Formats: sequence, C-alpha cells, structure tokens
Amino acid sequence: MILTVTLNAALDVTHHLDRLRPHESNRVGAVAARAGGKGINVSRVLQALGQETVVTGLAGGLTGAAVHRELTAAGLTHDLVTIDGETRRTVAVVDEKLGDTTILLEPGPVITADEWAGFLHTYDKLVARAAAVVLAGSLPVGVPTNAYAVLIRRARAHHVPAVLDADGKALRAGLSEAPAIIKPNAAELSVVSGSSDPQAGAAALRAAGAQAVVASAGPDGMIACTDQGSWRARPPQRLAGNPTGAGDAAVAALTLGLVQDAPWPVRLTEAVALSAAAVAAPLAGDFDPTVHRRLLEEITVESLPAPKTQTTS
Amino acid sequence: MILTVTLNAALDVTHHLDRLRPHESNRVGAVAARAGGKGINVSRVLQALGQETVVTGLAGGLTGAAVHRELTAAGLTHDLVTIDGETRRTVAVVDEKLGDTTILLEPGPVITADEWAGFLHTYDKLVARAAAVVLAGSLPVGVPTNAYAVLIRRARAHHVPAVLDADGKALRAGLSEAPAIIKPNAAELSVVSGSSDPQAGAAALRAAGAQAVVASAGPDGMIACTDQGSWRARPPQRLAGNPTGAGDAAVAALTLGLVQDAPWPVRLTEAVALSAAAVAAPLAGDFDPTVHRRLLEEITVESLPAPKTQTTS
Repeated sequence: MILTVTLNAALDVTHHLDRLRPHESNRVGAVAARAGGKGINVSRVLQALGQETVVTGLAGGLTGAAVHRELTAAGLTHDLVTIDGETRRTVAVVDEKLGDTTILLEPGPVITADEWAGFLHTYDKLVARAAAVVLAGSLPVGVPTNAYAVLIRRARAHHVPAVLDADGKALRAGLSEAPAIIKPNAAELSVVSGSSDPQAGAAALRAAGAQAVVASAGPDGMIACTDQGSWRARPPQRLAGNPTGAGDAAVAALTLGLVQDAPWPVRLTEAVALSAAAVAAPLAGDFDPTVHRRLLEEITVESLPAPKTQTTS
Repeated sequence: MILTVTLNAALDVTHHLDRLRPHESNRVGAVAARAGGKGINVSRVLQALGQETVVTGLAGGLTGAAVHRELTAAGLTHDLVTIDGETRRTVAVVDEKLGDTTILLEPGPVITADEWAGFLHTYDKLVARAAAVVLAGSLPVGVPTNAYAVLIRRARAHHVPAVLDADGKALRAGLSEAPAIIKPNAAELSVVSGSSDPQAGAAALRAAGAQAVVASAGPDGMIACTDQGSWRARPPQRLAGNPTGAGDAAVAALTLGLVQDAPWPVRLTEAVALSAAAVAAPLAGDFDPTVHRRLLEEITVESLPAPKTQTTS
C-alpha cells in the first residue's frame, strides 16, 4: 500500500461559465466539487493504475465532511484526522470562451498542537503498513515547519521510504532527513542553486540531503539526479491542456517505480508519460490512458554526464 | 411575528482580495460566509429593529447545514424544510484596491414534488401564527411557477397579508392573488407598462392585482401607489456604498408598516431611510443605525396626483 499525506486538504470547486465578466454578477452554468490537494491527487492516479493506496491528512468542518464524502464516492480509502477548523476550498472559475481559468485559493484552517499530535498517532499506525509514503503540498498554519522532517523520520523507523513534493521552508526542513525522492519545481531549484540550470539545482539539493532529485526541465521533459547516475527523459512534443495535477501524476509514477524498484530510466519515462497524460485530462488527479500508453513508446531517455563540481578559485 | 420565505436560500461567501487578477491564481486574504437570500436578509433587518421574525424556506446538503448553523449563530429563529439537493452558494470576490466586487451565482438545487408538498405543510403551520408574510426572491427549479400565488392564497386563508418581492413570471403569477404590497424593480415596471415612468408601471401592476406597489425611483427615492393615494419620498442626497440588500431593507420597513397599520407616508419614509442605511452597511441584511436615524429627519414626502388613465381612442 502507498500512503499519501495531504496536510492542507481542500475541496476543489469548479465553476463553469460561458464568459467571466470581472466586477459584475456572473451566473454559473455548472458546479463540480471534489477532494483536492497534492497527496489526494497522487492517490487518485495510483488508484487508476490499480495500486492500493490510502489517503491521510487533516480535514474539518462542513467542507471537511464534503472532502470525506467525495473520497468515499470516488472509492479512495481514506483515514483523515478530524480537526476543529474548517477545511479550505479552492474555486476555479473556468471561462469557457477564453478557455482559461481564474483560481481563488482560500486560506486553510489553523491546526492545534493536540490535533497535530493526533495526526502523528494515526500516521504511525498507517505508515507501519505502507510500502512508501508520499508527503505532498503546503503545510497548514499551526503545523511545525519541520513537519515533513518529522514524518520522514517516523517512516524510516518502519523502513518505509518517503517521496517529498513541497517547496520553500517545508521542503528545506525535510531534506535533513534524507527523503528517497524529492520533486522540486523550477523556481525552487534556481533559488537553491542560484543557477537556471536544473541539473546544478538538483545537485545542490542532493548535497543538502535528498537521495534523488527529479525536476521538470520544461519542454525538455524531466531530469533525475540519483546516486546511480543522472538522466533526462524527453516527450516527443509538448502537449496543450491543464497543467494542474501534472506534477502529482509524476509523483505517483516515481513512487510506484520506487516501490517496484524499477531502473531509473524506466521510472523517469513513466513520470514524463503520466505527467503529459495528466495535462491531457481536464481535472487534477486524472490522466488520459490513451496518451499515457502512446507516450510510453515515444519518450527518449539519455544518460547525463555528472554535473561539474563548483570549485572556489 | 413576521414570517419570511426564502425558497432559493444560499450561503453567501465573501472572498476579500487585495486585487483580483482574472485568469491567474489568487490567494484569498479572508473568507466570510453567511446565510443569504432575500427573505433571510429581510428577517435580519426586522430582528435588528426588535421585531419577532421566523425564517422559512428550503435548504439541503452540507451547504444547507451551513445555512442552518449560521442562522442559529445569528440568533434568527428558523424552520427551513430539508431537501435532498445541495443549497447553492454565491461567491462575492471583493477587490479591495478597486473597491468593487465580482459575483459568482451558483445554480440552485432541484426541488421534488414531495419536498414542495412538505414545505406547504410547514408553511401552513407557520403562517397561521404570523402577522404578515414576506415572499422574496427567485424560485428554485422544480417549484411550480405559480408558487407565490399558492402561498398568498394560503396566507389569506389565515387572514395574513403577503408582501411579494419577486420579478418575471414568479411576480406576475403572484399578482392574481392580490398581494398586499409588491416591490418590483425598475426593469420589471417598464416591461409591464411599456413606459419608463415608474408611476405608470405601478398603475399597471395594481390593475393586474397588487393592492399597493412600491417602486424605486432611482435617485428620486421611492414611490408608493395604493388605494389610498400615491406618494414619493426623497432622500436628501444619494448615498454611496453597497446596494445589495437595500431592497430587502425597504421590504422589511414596508412589512413592519403594514403590520403596524402606519400611514403610507410614514411607511415610505421608513422604507427610504432603511434602504439608504442598508447601502451604508457592508453586508446585505445589515444597516447603519446612525444613517437610519438621521435620514428619518431629512426625507421629504409629497403626495402625487393620480396617474392619467390610458384611454383607447
């Protein structure tokens, strides 16, 4: 079983409009709502790939109840810890005419020390029977800034490897506990390394503790920097569509490759293919299986030379 | 007790943003949510005026539960009939920099025949002990188009007068049952009378069945056309602010005047003063008591000559 952790879960609401007229009254044509947050999206992808997965995290209030209900309806096994605060919503307003989206992100609830302690108790119980754990997304207010370090350490006590998808302080605090894989975004890489070269950024994050770093190289696909070598996987062409959830699909593929101990070039190919197949699907957590199968045949992987070590002259 | 009916209740959610950037991701600074819909706003104003009031209508799902909870927290007595569908939300996105608002109106739930029958049962019980009933707002899908006619007739069976604040078909179907007061908007008046003169429009709606018609005359205040005469009440100046809820405050004043059998010039003065005091308050259902008291002194009322009868030559 692959455990996914979503500490700042959300109810993702989509409003479909003919045309969004800012600063006016807009009648919404259709409303859709489903449970969201990076970890939950990863579990959806894993489930669609036929893998056993459990969702955990924090949820509360009436919106938390809606998250519970939707996860159950989607057939996803979940064990969310109930909090007093109200789970946040995200509202995506889709302008059908322009084909683009305005997103409103509500702030999340504040987590108390008791609630965090309660979560750790549930987490220990779940991670003990997991093959791997995915820690993904932002930290809600009230959770310690080293939350991901704590969760990686507790997973290791059960010999369970952790995949970390976060940024900023939450990511950096997690590095000290040597996560098996991290998937930082391009902005994070350049902040850490002071360079726009993703390979240099990945090397800096490995030096800071990550066992393997997988990063998007934009239209050039993805790179993986590991203790077994570095690789780049390229898609045949760039796909148009909804980029939300593409990173979560890549994390699902990388975690599955980790559990199956697949060779890195295979893991990276799967990550690029699933990520592109997620771009081709309208909702985060979904992917287009036809695009996925086709791309698996068409992606090329090359081995990269080790990055030059920066020397101080 | 004054009963208010909100058949298409809502949870009104407000997102406060520094600046709304359409077609981008926006982090919301603060979120507020409260029960909304015209009847509920009328009850809030009546409660603030020290009047006993009961809210009824239809609500369901988790959003319906949030409506229940907020009404209780606000100290409003409510007896909403539970439906299977999910109560709608409205999302008002307030751009603090521009000082204006983008509104997203979700479609409401579909009401079944059994749910409507259940509502009529509750309504009969409540209206029997009311001094007046306010029927306000749009009709949800599934409710008969003559819903307001049915409710006015049932109120009359208990000798309870009805105030109707609706438009389009819902208003026109209600006219046949001779509501005590209607408060159509300017657009409705001109559609009915084919004239931009509000007095001509009011006369046409009285001819169609309404006992009294009160209408906004824009910056010129409000007019009332009744079987006792016609009047216009003017505020000293136009107030800037939030016009949402101004009509609901006027309906609250008119209903209270009806119950107290106040002379029409007094009722109209109260309607203009409360309406302007509602414009000065940030949320629908609230009003600024200082503005209210000040305007009561400053509003002027004039008697209007009877409108010329249209004759066919």
